[in-house]
Amino acid sequence: MKFVIIGGDAAGMSAASRAKRKNPDVDVLVLEQTHDVSYSACGMPYNISDPQRDMEKLVVRRAEVFIEKNKINLLTGHRVTAIDRAAKKVTGITVQGESFDFDYDKLFIATGASAVFPDLPGFDLPQIMALKSLEDGKRIKSYIKEKNVKKAVIIGMGYIALEMCEAFEKRGVKTSMVKPRPIFLPWLNKDLADVIHEELIDKGIDIHTGYAIKKIEPSGNGVRVDCEGLTLEADMVLVASGVKPCSEMARDAGLDLGISDSIAVDRYLRTSDEDIYAAGDCADTYHVVTDDKCWIPLALIANRAGWAVADNVCGTQTRLQGVAGTSVFKVFSLEVARSGLNCKEAADAGFDPVENSVKTRSRAHGHPGSTPIHINMVADKKTGRLLGTQMVGKEGVAHRINAIAVALHNKMTVEDFSQSDLAYAPPFGPVWDPLLTAANQLVKKI
Amino acid sequence: MKFVIIGGDAAGMSAASRAKRKNPDVDVLVLEQTHDVSYSACGMPYNISDPQRDMEKLVVRRAEVFIEKNKINLLTGHRVTAIDRAAKKVTGITVQGESFDFDYDKLFIATGASAVFPDLPGFDLPQIMALKSLEDGKRIKSYIKEKNVKKAVIIGMGYIALEMCEAFEKRGVKTSMVKPRPIFLPWLNKDLADVIHEELIDKGIDIHTGYAIKKIEPSGNGVRVDCEGLTLEADMVLVASGVKPCSEMARDAGLDLGISDSIAVDRYLRTSDEDIYAAGDCADTYHVVTDDKCWIPLALIANRAGWAVADNVCGTQTRLQGVAGTSVFKVFSLEVARSGLNCKEAADAGFDPVENSVKTRSRAHGHPGSTPIHINMVADKKTGRLLGTQMVGKEGVAHRINAIAVALHNKMTVEDFSQSDLAYAPPFGPVWDPLLTAANQLVKKI
Repeated sequence: MKFVIIGGDAAGMSAASRAKRKNPDVDVLVLEQTHDVSYSACGMPYNISDPQRDMEKLVVRRAEVFIEKNKINLLTGHRVTAIDRAAKKVTGITVQGESFDFDYDKLFIATGASAVFPDLPGFDLPQIMALKSLEDGKRIKSYIKEKNVKKAVIIGMGYIALEMCEAFEKRGVKTSMVKPRPIFLPWLNKDLADVIHEELIDKGIDIHTGYAIKKIEPSGNGVRVDCEGLTLEADMVLVASGVKPCSEMARDAGLDLGISDSIAVDRYLRTSDEDIYAAGDCADTYHVVTDDKCWIPLALIANRAGWAVADNVCGTQTRLQGVAGTSVFKVFSLEVARSGLNCKEAADAGFDPVENSVKTRSRAHGHPGSTPIHINMVADKKTGRLLGTQMVGKEGVAHRINAIAVALHNKMTVEDFSQSDLAYAPPFGPVWDPLLTAANQLVKKI
Repeated sequence: MKFVIIGGDAAGMSAASRAKRKNPDVDVLVLEQTHDVSYSACGMPYNISDPQRDMEKLVVRRAEVFIEKNKINLLTGHRVTAIDRAAKKVTGITVQGESFDFDYDKLFIATGASAVFPDLPGFDLPQIMALKSLEDGKRIKSYIKEKNVKKAVIIGMGYIALEMCEAFEKRGVKTSMVKPRPIFLPWLNKDLADVIHEELIDKGIDIHTGYAIKKIEPSGNGVRVDCEGLTLEADMVLVASGVKPCSEMARDAGLDLGISDSIAVDRYLRTSDEDIYAAGDCADTYHVVTDDKCWIPLALIANRAGWAVADNVCGTQTRLQGVAGTSVFKVFSLEVARSGLNCKEAADAGFDPVENSVKTRSRAHGHPGSTPIHINMVADKKTGRLLGTQMVGKEGVAHRINAIAVALHNKMTVEDFSQSDLAYAPPFGPVWDPLLTAANQLVKKI
C-alpha cells in the first residue's frame, strides 16, 4: 500500500513513524516543502532568548535518521501543489524547480498552519518577520544579533507574541506590542488578564491596544509602524497576529472545510474523501465540552492525531475523543493556563454559564515563598457541569490545569470535582488546593 | 441544639466554624485537650528546618479568635475521657484536674491520631520524641537548639521521617534512619524508591533497614539505640513509626470500629450511633478505586469531612465520595507523589493488576534545565481501568498527580486517560506529558 503524507512536521512524522512500526510493508512517502522535520517549534522563543544556545538543539530527529533508521521515504524540499482525487495522485514542485507526481492509496494531509499576514503596505519589507518555521526562527535569531536590534514591535498579543516579548527582553531589545482590537487578552478573564498586563508593564514592555495598523514604512535602517493615532519606530517587527490552516490545496481538491477554513475530519481523522485523512494544525477536531467541532492548533493534538491516522491507515480503528482546549504558556515570572471554555465561549455554545474568580496561595499557611494564584472557573447553571478554568500565578499553575482537563473529559459537575482528593503538602499548596477553593466557591453560585 | 465536638484540630474546627456559619443558633461546644487549635501540623518539619522562623507562624487561627469572632464555645485544656451514649453526655478532666461533663444532642468525635510508640525499654527517656502536636514540634525545635543536637536517629521511614530527615540536615544534624522491616519504602515501586534512596545517601543520611530495635539506653548526654546487630549513638531520637487512630473512647462507648481500629463511619460520617459522627484521622473512609473502606489519615480528608459533618448536623445531607489516596511530599530536591493503589494493593483488593514504569523528562526536548521524571502506573488487566500512579522527580510531580486523582474519581480506563488533553509548553514538559507517555506504554500491556 502506498501511504503518502503531505507535510513532515508533528502530525506527518508521527504518522509516518507509527505506520512503519505497525506495518513495515506499508510504503510510506513523506513530502515536506522545507528541509526541517521533527523539531520543537514551541521551543523557538525560549531558544531565541539565549544567544548561547544553538537553534539546532530544537531538532528532535533529522531527516536522514528517518530515512536510514526508520526506513521512511522522506523527500524534503518537495512542495505538493495539487491533489488529483480521481487519479489518486499528488503533484508538486521541488525547491530546484523540478515537477513531480506520486500515486497514493491513502493520503494524509498534514500541511499545518501559516502565520496570518495583514494585507497592508510595507509588510513585505525585510525587517518584518513571523515565527512559524525553524527557518523563521533562525532568521529572527540571526537578525537580532547581526543587526544589533535594540527596538522591536510585536503586532498581536497571542501566546507567541507574549513568549517573544520575553525573548526580546532577555536579548536587551526594547519591545512594544500593538494590536487593532481594544482588549489586551480577550479570551482571558479580566482579573487574570490584568495580572499579566501588570507583569509586562513591570518588565518595561509597552502595550498599545486598539490601534489599527495602516502601513509600515522604511525609516533609516529600521521601519516605522504607522497606526491610527500612533507611530512606532523599530529595528524589526514580529507579526504574531495568529495562524490560519493551510487548507487551500484541500479546498481546491474539493474536500469539505470546517471551522475557520480548517479541513473537516471525523473522529477517525477522515476527510470527506474516504482515502484522504487530515490532522494537525490544518484540520478541525471535536471539543469534549461542547461535543462540537473546533479548530485549536496545538502540538499535542497534532502528534496524537498523527498516530491515530497511522492506526486507521494500517487497519486498527482508532477514534479520538477530542480536545479540552488545554494550553499553558510562560510569560516572564508568570504561568498562564486554561482548559475548557471561558464564560463567553460557554454562552456562545448554548450553555447557561456562571463564573467565579478566586485569589488563593501557592503554598500552605506559614510556608515561606508563597505567591498568589488567580483562578477563574466557569460552570453551567442548569446542570452544574464544569465548563472551563483559567489560572495565572508564579508557580503551581502549569501542571495543576491538567486536573481540570481530565475533569472536562469526564464531564464532571463542579460539585463532584470539589470532592476530588487532590494532593497536599505545605511546599506545594494549601490544604484546600486552589482548584478546590475555586470549585467550593463556584458551587455556591450554581 | 447542642452540638459537642471532641477535638479542635482540622476536622473539629472545620465542623465548628461551618456549623456556626450555616446556623448561628446551633450551640457549638468544642472540647480540646491541648491549647492549640487550627495550626498547620504538616508544616512543622519545614518550620523546624529554619531556626529563624517562629513556630507560631504555623497557627492559622487562635482559640480566642474562634471564641470571639466565630462565637464558638471552645474550651482548650479539656480532655474528654468517656462518652455516655445512654445519657447523651461526655465527661472528662481539665488540665487543672477538674472534672467536667456536658450534654449533647449531636456529638462529633474528631480525636485524630497519635504517634505509635514501640513498647520497648528506654522509649520514655527525655531524648526520645515524636512529632504530632504543635507542642511536640516546639519541643523538638527548642531541643535541637538548646542541646546543640549534632546527631539524630529517626526510627521509621514514612513521610514524617523523610521530611524530618531534611529538616535535621538543614540544621546541621547528622542523621541515621533505622527500621525493623527490610524494604526502604515498601509502598513505592522499587525503581522509584531507589531514586529517593540515592538522594538521601547523597545528602549524607545513613539508612539502616531490617534492624529490629531492642532498647534505648542513656549514653552521656545522649542515648544509644540498640538494635539486632547495630548500635546507633545520638543526641536525640525521633520516633516516626506511623500513627494510630485515637479511637479508644469510641470503642469503650461501644461504637463500631473499622479498618486499623479507626472509628467506622458511613458516607455521611455517621458512626453506629445515629447521634454520633466521627471524621478525620480517627475515622475510616471510602476509597474511590476499591469502593471499600480504608484508613488514610490526611489533612484534606479531615477538613472536608469536618464540613460534611456540620452540614449533616445542620440538616443538609452531604455525602462524601471518598478518597483516592492522593499524597505528596518533598524530600530534599525530590517531589514524591502518589494516587490510587500500588500493584500489591491492587492485587489485595481483587484486581488483576499490571504495572509499568517509565522515565521521562520534566521539560521539552532542547529546553534547558530538564530533569528526569519517574512514573509507575498500575491498571486492571481485565477492565483496563487505571488503578494508581506513583511519581518521583525534581519538578513537575506534585501538581501533576492531581490529574490522576481526578481520573481515579471517574474510574477512567488507561486508554481513555491516554486521550486526555493535557497542557504543553516547553518549560513545563514534553509535548507528550509524562503521564501520557506512562499511559501510552501501559496500554500496550493491557
